[in-house]
Amino acid sequence: MTGYHAPLTEMRFVLEAVARLDRVAALPGYEETTPELVEAVLGEAGRLAGEVLAPLNQTGDREGSRFENGVVRTPAGWAAAYQHYVEGGWNALPFDPEHGGQGLPWTLAAAVQEMWQSANMAFALCPLLTQGAVELLQVHGTAAQKATYLPRLVSGEWTGTMNLTEPQAGSDVGALKTRAVRDGEHYRITGQKIFITYGEHDIAPNIIHMVLARLPDAPAGTRGISLFLVPKFLVKADGSLGQRNDLRCASLEHKLGIHASPTAVMAFGDDGGAIGTLVGEENQGMACMFTMMNNARLSVGLQGLAIAERAYQQALGYARERVQGATIENPGDGPALIIAHPDVRRMLMTMKAQVEAMRALAYTTAAALDRAKRHPDAEARAAAQARVDLLIPVTKAWLTDLGCEVASLGLQLHGGMGYIEETGAAQYFRDARIAPIYEGTNGIQALDLLRRKLARDEGEAARDLFAEMQRSLAALRGLPGEEIKALREGLQQGLASLEDATGWLLGAHKDSPARAAAGASPYLRLFGTVVGGWLLAQGAAAALERLAADENGSGQNGIDRAFLRAKPITARFYAENILPQAPALAAAVMRGADSTLALADEQF
Amino acid sequence: MTGYHAPLTEMRFVLEAVARLDRVAALPGYEETTPELVEAVLGEAGRLAGEVLAPLNQTGDREGSRFENGVVRTPAGWAAAYQHYVEGGWNALPFDPEHGGQGLPWTLAAAVQEMWQSANMAFALCPLLTQGAVELLQVHGTAAQKATYLPRLVSGEWTGTMNLTEPQAGSDVGALKTRAVRDGEHYRITGQKIFITYGEHDIAPNIIHMVLARLPDAPAGTRGISLFLVPKFLVKADGSLGQRNDLRCASLEHKLGIHASPTAVMAFGDDGGAIGTLVGEENQGMACMFTMMNNARLSVGLQGLAIAERAYQQALGYARERVQGATIENPGDGPALIIAHPDVRRMLMTMKAQVEAMRALAYTTAAALDRAKRHPDAEARAAAQARVDLLIPVTKAWLTDLGCEVASLGLQLHGGMGYIEETGAAQYFRDARIAPIYEGTNGIQALDLLRRKLARDEGEAARDLFAEMQRSLAALRGLPGEEIKALREGLQQGLASLEDATGWLLGAHKDSPARAAAGASPYLRLFGTVVGGWLLAQGAAAALERLAADENGSGQNGIDRAFLRAKPITARFYAENILPQAPALAAAVMRGADSTLALADEQF
Repeated sequence: MTGYHAPLTEMRFVLEAVARLDRVAALPGYEETTPELVEAVLGEAGRLAGEVLAPLNQTGDREGSRFENGVVRTPAGWAAAYQHYVEGGWNALPFDPEHGGQGLPWTLAAAVQEMWQSANMAFALCPLLTQGAVELLQVHGTAAQKATYLPRLVSGEWTGTMNLTEPQAGSDVGALKTRAVRDGEHYRITGQKIFITYGEHDIAPNIIHMVLARLPDAPAGTRGISLFLVPKFLVKADGSLGQRNDLRCASLEHKLGIHASPTAVMAFGDDGGAIGTLVGEENQGMACMFTMMNNARLSVGLQGLAIAERAYQQALGYARERVQGATIENPGDGPALIIAHPDVRRMLMTMKAQVEAMRALAYTTAAALDRAKRHPDAEARAAAQARVDLLIPVTKAWLTDLGCEVASLGLQLHGGMGYIEETGAAQYFRDARIAPIYEGTNGIQALDLLRRKLARDEGEAARDLFAEMQRSLAALRGLPGEEIKALREGLQQGLASLEDATGWLLGAHKDSPARAAAGASPYLRLFGTVVGGWLLAQGAAAALERLAADENGSGQNGIDRAFLRAKPITARFYAENILPQAPALAAAVMRGADSTLALADEQF
Repeated sequence: MTGYHAPLTEMRFVLEAVARLDRVAALPGYEETTPELVEAVLGEAGRLAGEVLAPLNQTGDREGSRFENGVVRTPAGWAAAYQHYVEGGWNALPFDPEHGGQGLPWTLAAAVQEMWQSANMAFALCPLLTQGAVELLQVHGTAAQKATYLPRLVSGEWTGTMNLTEPQAGSDVGALKTRAVRDGEHYRITGQKIFITYGEHDIAPNIIHMVLARLPDAPAGTRGISLFLVPKFLVKADGSLGQRNDLRCASLEHKLGIHASPTAVMAFGDDGGAIGTLVGEENQGMACMFTMMNNARLSVGLQGLAIAERAYQQALGYARERVQGATIENPGDGPALIIAHPDVRRMLMTMKAQVEAMRALAYTTAAALDRAKRHPDAEARAAAQARVDLLIPVTKAWLTDLGCEVASLGLQLHGGMGYIEETGAAQYFRDARIAPIYEGTNGIQALDLLRRKLARDEGEAARDLFAEMQRSLAALRGLPGEEIKALREGLQQGLASLEDATGWLLGAHKDSPARAAAGASPYLRLFGTVVGGWLLAQGAAAALERLAADENGSGQNGIDRAFLRAKPITARFYAENILPQAPALAAAVMRGADSTLALADEQF
């Protein structure tokens, strides 16, 4: 198994040249985000990820979290690594300083989260869930809830969970049945929740469950759901831990991957009802959830990117050490490293180009989140929020789908060794497969993009984005070289396909919403594919600019010419090999609906 | 977990209408293949697959084959199921009657093999390997080898293995180091082999290893490889088992999937050399291997189809019982079966259309194999062999790639439940992943298609196929209906892309073979995609013909109108949603090579 090395040069480049962290750092409240601080944060996070978390990834997978006599035991090393992580202050990075957070931008947090997820996705899921609890409480918590829980969730001393799913209520959260009954100042919660990530574990002294439940007099469906804070241990007035609450882990799931992450069935109220307090208003639970959804979905998208990066590193390492077969051009020279074979190179380029496009989209979305939160101008904030809302389902679904595909390519590159668990490639393939499912399946993301994001503003946010892309295209016209030419052509065709499909969908959504919905998934894929190409083009243009500035080729100012030269080449690869899929995806959207819906149920 | 039900209606239809089993049955030697026999064979095989093999699939996966004190133990039920299979005479189905085979066509055997692989891929691998040994001995064995080994391999009483791979010799078999030294009438074999499927097990009394090794005076590379028959137990003159040979299983691999199939590291000659006899001529081992390669690759392609079919059945079963969310069109009606949701329907249609295209290609290739073997006219035999040689790498690689993709879609359709091992969908996803790797990785298949199949005859066999496809297209022009129109358009564009890419590749292969090789994988995908669409169109046309013949709509003669009506609809879905990928794949072939090869090794 290859270790993990945070791709710092690439991360810095995307943060600077594509996500424009400099502009984010200029927003009020983010002034501390100096280049020196960014450098220090990335370097230190890379060390923790590579040296502490990554070495536990495979052992954690083999050992798994186990459920023994009502207790969940995480794998060896888990608790110590978590301590390390908390003591480094890492958990507090993006949260409000008011509650002990460092208040750094989400743009920077995205790069750091990518590292945790690359190093050890099963481990990094725990903080990902805590993040959701923190965001809910930051916005919707009472003063008392904030005072009691936020500092210790922000620091990571305690961890958080999201209790949404029930056996009959998966994608349709509104179908949940868990009950909450008023009991004096608090509520009594009774019911069963499934798929609760880190619902029980042994790496922190308390677990704060955010639980969706229904009050006795609540309206049906999503409008009758309330959100409750239900701690594993009740907290006394002095902040110390009191009695055990009436909730327990009933079992852990046996999953395809992320074995070390305990996925619990949680039983609330076996003994009269778990004690919880209301977060937000009664029956406003779903609205509260929307608060954290964008960040949570960005984080899951980052998992797709992260596992793809890790799989790429592993495959590249193998391609650079495995000797097999002579090259096509010089068969007489005997066996060569497989990186010399054109077909292997195609696999590596496909992985590399897609990973870079994924990263560019993830960081760009994070930067829009920061603008939406901090921009001094209300109109700019609203525009940024519209951009975030539009890009979030794409970031979640496109990145996690590609995460699986890149992990699969990485496995394939290893030949027979890829199928052997010791190699490590298979674990990425298994771990990656959850990300298109949780935090809203990718099918749900596609419907969200179509029915909430596109239809709600009649395509306005999308048109804004397309106009920006057209401006980039126009700017590319001024740049020389065949890479730019190929990029321009690929992007032009891709953008035309995206605009066509968008127009068609907006019309179909009004006339025949089911036909529109039948095209939602290929549309999201089209969206991601074209936006990814656009962002790679931005990177390529920036790289050419830097190279041009380094006129005498001296590589002064730490400029890495080989790295920068790879940018337009990689973007060209994407334009010639991946962007041509755009018209095919648009065809599936615009022409494929009738045949998708034509069979009777019994004809399947 | 859903069980397995052999899709008999569909299998019969593809055998009759697409692979034209009637024509195969008319070949000399296949006269016994009457419609009644076919019906009986399919029905009985379906029962064995569904009732005996399928129930062991998940338990076998959980238990796995274990290596204990030098002994390999297969999962509970394995030995009895294998007995059942052998006693039913199933192993003998396609082999020469001279050695106890039933001499039935490979076309029929393909359908039967599909069932075994759908029911229990880890189990069915054992006969798949025995098949290879039988074919080698049928053609290259000495009279004594045939007499001693063939009857018991044909019946399945003994099993066979292929010992090719060594740690340094994977795709490059020529790099192998296992030694063979002449020792009187036989040879002494010494060396280590890896990835030996069913290299050791407890379900048959003897295992016949076909081992590639190198004689002391052999030329380097593939021209110095010889093939040996090395039995686990030496066989006495009277046919009874004699002493244990000097070979052993050193360990079993821990794999991503096919847990029940023991993948052995085999050690030959720890104690002076395992006794083997030569098969074929000295240094002609690789040539011998080519004898069985086409059938073996077809069989692995069938695994891709089989696992896709099983994943589809599982997903369809879930879609028909899982209630979640209201429909888009009637939200007031409350929760609906998920099969009603357009996005779920897209997943099901994608699975269904691809499975049908895969099956059509697999059976068609098998029919070509039968013609190549049995056609009375030498020219027709040669033409059929050229077709086989062309289609085999496509059948192997395209079907196994799609097998993984369909299994992944099937998992996705289950939402969170798909990630839980108990559900069963995850096992198909894991099991399917080996098929693109073994029996020549899919990258190797793509290079085979380009460098051996296409370049060797300068595209002649390909042009023959394209001409046949053009004739089908012309025939479609006479048929009515919008499904046929969509099919015609999709196919026309697809075929144009395929012809363009073929022409480009033939030129590039001469001028710059590395650039051609860089496009080999997308070219194979393009080839499979278009040929699959062509075969679906044939099925659609045949279905319309049958429907037209059933004028009064009475469904007499057992005609299943709903099934037949689904054919053109499914083909149209394929034409509108999948065939549009053809120009994108052609672009990757024709324009993508330069950027694929442009980076220096250190720029990755």
